[in-house]
Amino acid sequence: MLHMEKPNTVTCTAPVNIAVIKYCKVWIYVTLHQDQLKTTTTVATSRSFQEDRIWLNGKEEDITHPRLQSCLREIRRLARKRSKDGDRALDSMRLSHKVHICSVNDFPTAAGLASSAAGFACLVYTLAQVFGVEGELSEIARQGSGSACRSMYGGFVQWIMGEEDNGKDSLAQQVAPETHWPELRVLVLVASAERKPVGSTSGMQTSVQTSRLLKHRAESVVPGRMEEMIEAVQRKDFAAFADLTMKDSNQFHATCLDTYPPIFYLNSVSQQVINLVHRYNRHYKETRLAYTFDAGPNAVIYTLQQHVPEFVQTVQHFFPPETNGGEFVKGLPIEQVALSEELRQAIGLEPLPKGISYVISTKVGPGPCVLEDPTQHLLGSDGWPKKTL
Amino acid sequence: MLHMEKPNTVTCTAPVNIAVIKYCKVWIYVTLHQDQLKTTTTVATSRSFQEDRIWLNGKEEDITHPRLQSCLREIRRLARKRSKDGDRALDSMRLSHKVHICSVNDFPTAAGLASSAAGFACLVYTLAQVFGVEGELSEIARQGSGSACRSMYGGFVQWIMGEEDNGKDSLAQQVAPETHWPELRVLVLVASAERKPVGSTSGMQTSVQTSRLLKHRAESVVPGRMEEMIEAVQRKDFAAFADLTMKDSNQFHATCLDTYPPIFYLNSVSQQVINLVHRYNRHYKETRLAYTFDAGPNAVIYTLQQHVPEFVQTVQHFFPPETNGGEFVKGLPIEQVALSEELRQAIGLEPLPKGISYVISTKVGPGPCVLEDPTQHLLGSDGWPKKTL
Repeated sequence: MLHMEKPNTVTCTAPVNIAVIKYCKVWIYVTLHQDQLKTTTTVATSRSFQEDRIWLNGKEEDITHPRLQSCLREIRRLARKRSKDGDRALDSMRLSHKVHICSVNDFPTAAGLASSAAGFACLVYTLAQVFGVEGELSEIARQGSGSACRSMYGGFVQWIMGEEDNGKDSLAQQVAPETHWPELRVLVLVASAERKPVGSTSGMQTSVQTSRLLKHRAESVVPGRMEEMIEAVQRKDFAAFADLTMKDSNQFHATCLDTYPPIFYLNSVSQQVINLVHRYNRHYKETRLAYTFDAGPNAVIYTLQQHVPEFVQTVQHFFPPETNGGEFVKGLPIEQVALSEELRQAIGLEPLPKGISYVISTKVGPGPCVLEDPTQHLLGSDGWPKKTL
Repeated sequence: MLHMEKPNTVTCTAPVNIAVIKYCKVWIYVTLHQDQLKTTTTVATSRSFQEDRIWLNGKEEDITHPRLQSCLREIRRLARKRSKDGDRALDSMRLSHKVHICSVNDFPTAAGLASSAAGFACLVYTLAQVFGVEGELSEIARQGSGSACRSMYGGFVQWIMGEEDNGKDSLAQQVAPETHWPELRVLVLVASAERKPVGSTSGMQTSVQTSRLLKHRAESVVPGRMEEMIEAVQRKDFAAFADLTMKDSNQFHATCLDTYPPIFYLNSVSQQVINLVHRYNRHYKETRLAYTFDAGPNAVIYTLQQHVPEFVQTVQHFFPPETNGGEFVKGLPIEQVALSEELRQAIGLEPLPKGISYVISTKVGPGPCVLEDPTQHLLGSDGWPKKTL
């Protein structure tokens, strides 16, 4: 019988990212701040563990899932290689130890917040810390979720998927760090608890196979927009950034509709948000707001700090929240202002009660971090999930 | 003072058409039967009339509207030319007479049923009868509503818009007459009484200016689909006809979404109809139904006669009508059948109560007709609207 031994435990967090150029082979992402939205993962290894196990959001899940298995296999392979190369004084014993993995999201897993990308990125980052693997982790993260590598960086991130099946020629790189554009604010308008009807992976594959417009978008539209978007970010040109973001979101959803059978991610709440944003901008004769939608109905709004209070009042007016619901705005605090009658009339939409459950107020943030404080581990000193989960 | 004189009065009807290939310069239309949907127009001329006047759906409207004026001017010009050429023994006096026009639609003018195209087609056709003008009327109809000339023919109609501003090189022709495919049935699912948010003319112009995908659709997708559609109609190949119809409807709405700011014609009811149709077809492993949507949320369903009863039951199940509403199905009578449990489960959507107000059951029909029965005139023997309007 094995004697009890204290596990080797590491906890990391990783951010959620929102794409502003969305095409299956070329993306530009904005990393959201982990003070508001993050995945936390603890990995422990111990010779006393009988098998690899995983708990997600408080519930044990199947560790034999192929994506999990390929992440684990790849990290162990890289660790073994390093150990053999003598490049690092890693206790080679630890390579044979089983792992316990515990992960939680501090945001709802409902449609559109790319929880699986953040989750896999955090898992890979944490495993790499545990097994002492450094370097190009996004290759491994891609084994888990095609888009996980985007969560390996902070700030503004460009990802170009290569041609090889193993992903070795894919390239993720930072366009600008999280400190680059401090006035930029991000508001997540959480629209609905409904699950999205089609998983985004199968959705994108069906689009590639059936949408004639997607092919044209890929070949003739996206390359130019990538360049323009990178320039807009580097110049901090909000109007250019916003127009490109909105046009690219619309075109992405247009190719979803051109998929056969068509895929719908935008619902009536999304359509109302889109109309509201365009009317708001038109009223001010200036592009002050941008929307973007991933594979779900939740709107992500980009704006500059000074416009946030009025915009939030506008949202609250046109999507009146439940009177006995929780707080309407979570995250970064927002000043209360009055909504002008002119703006209300210029928008002139019929209010859609309870269309938006709540708003998460956040900004651009850093990539994955190691948490040094052991009280933040999700696994106890015995290597098992803490009771509080 | 003028003595009373009996006006010269003609009444005609014209059909509604639904496009199955929808692009601003190239269209294929299906003419719906006038037993279910039609515009009726009476035109009277009399030397006792003081001025041109028009009544639409029981309300006097402004005759100085530029589109109306150009229709009137063009018809009178052609009539004058004919009269001069001595080609026809038209009382040249009548050319100087003022006209009274009275027109009604027997269907709601709500979104998506192309009432303006049918209205202008009927007006031009009736004016031509009154003034003894024959020949290429679609040129004139185009002065009224760009798409009016499609209502000048019955059956399946192809319209190719030319390059010239005056429309003289545009071409409308019949692909197949209304008797060609007697099993084909058309069901209009009237979704909502809401007005469409953007007029379709301005919508299409904004799309041409802003949608990158529309350009590609026009150059690379539509020409091939026109040929395939004509072949499918001529072969009466329902599966090919249906797939092309659905793909083209989706791609049209995709380019609306790629327009900037985007245009939405499909609402949550439309999305549910689309999902229902694809799941119905998947259940039978055969394309038995096709949907298409014009510039509004109403679905137009094509199917073959034998599938109508079950499909209507399906619609009634997934869009439960108001219990105290009017009749759910109008038009061609439909046999009552039971909905199988397998089909209900295979579709498996959440019912959307009152999503569809009613269904109009119809088929392919003929072009404009002259009504010989004088009791059907909308203007009385004095040349003024009948009291019953």
